[in-house]
Amino acid sequence: MDMTPEQLDTLFMTEALKEAELAAQEGEVPVGAVVVRDGQIIGRGRNAREYGKNALAHAEIVAIDSACKQIGSWRLLGCTLYVTMEPCPMCAGAIISARIPRVVCSVRDAKAGAFGSVINLNSYPLNHKTQVEYGLLNEPYTRLLGDFFAELRKKLRKK
Amino acid sequence: MDMTPEQLDTLFMTEALKEAELAAQEGEVPVGAVVVRDGQIIGRGRNAREYGKNALAHAEIVAIDSACKQIGSWRLLGCTLYVTMEPCPMCAGAIISARIPRVVCSVRDAKAGAFGSVINLNSYPLNHKTQVEYGLLNEPYTRLLGDFFAELRKKLRKK
Repeated sequence: MDMTPEQLDTLFMTEALKEAELAAQEGEVPVGAVVVRDGQIIGRGRNAREYGKNALAHAEIVAIDSACKQIGSWRLLGCTLYVTMEPCPMCAGAIISARIPRVVCSVRDAKAGAFGSVINLNSYPLNHKTQVEYGLLNEPYTRLLGDFFAELRKKLRKK
Repeated sequence: MDMTPEQLDTLFMTEALKEAELAAQEGEVPVGAVVVRDGQIIGRGRNAREYGKNALAHAEIVAIDSACKQIGSWRLLGCTLYVTMEPCPMCAGAIISARIPRVVCSVRDAKAGAFGSVINLNSYPLNHKTQVEYGLLNEPYTRLLGDFFAELRKKLRKK
């Protein structure tokens, strides 16, 4: 039975959420992402800034890097990036650099979001614009984030 | 004999320019960058988007990646990034993500510059601001860019 576009979106965001859960287990702020083309995941990534000791190791950058390597091109035409949190300026810029046409996010980021919350890169005359949607799997992801930061505060109090 | 701060800036921008020249030889839009800490180059990069087939392979990203690996930290505190062209949103965002305090650029980028030309990321309430300077080695770099695009047009006419 074929899945509807909505079911496919939920399926792929569930995969992004799994990456976020892995990040949380590794002690990183839980953010996960997957890049999808023609119904196939061609790149996955999770936040690894502390563990990877690298300022570039955000979920979207890792996923875009692996997708470019997978298809052998810097242009991720026809792809959708699913990410649990609104991209920061670096990641939103990378999405534009890779010409990704569609981004599906779970929650907005009021502190650093660059597709509408703090900045909106789509409002500037750059050479590419990306369609951005919000809200998918908002509830389970918000719970994961809440649990992660509650646990972190508990650890910090013990120190 | 100790060098003055101005002489050091010129020395390091000359290294960024060498990277840009290598990029041009490889058929890439010539952009080069180096990351410097305590008078030492800890990361180098040049544009390799076509050759590397990767949307992330801008000079600054490559240089920041190698600097983080070199020092084993995502925070490039106390570092200066020298880059021949004003960073795009992705690279300006990466500079903020790495907490780089100072960026020295040769020329501005009217098409995609994100430190003042198209966007100014420093004008938003993000958690880091970077001091950005322009104009160093403007003349030789502008000549390199001009030669590269003249050559490219010649090749395209022959096709």
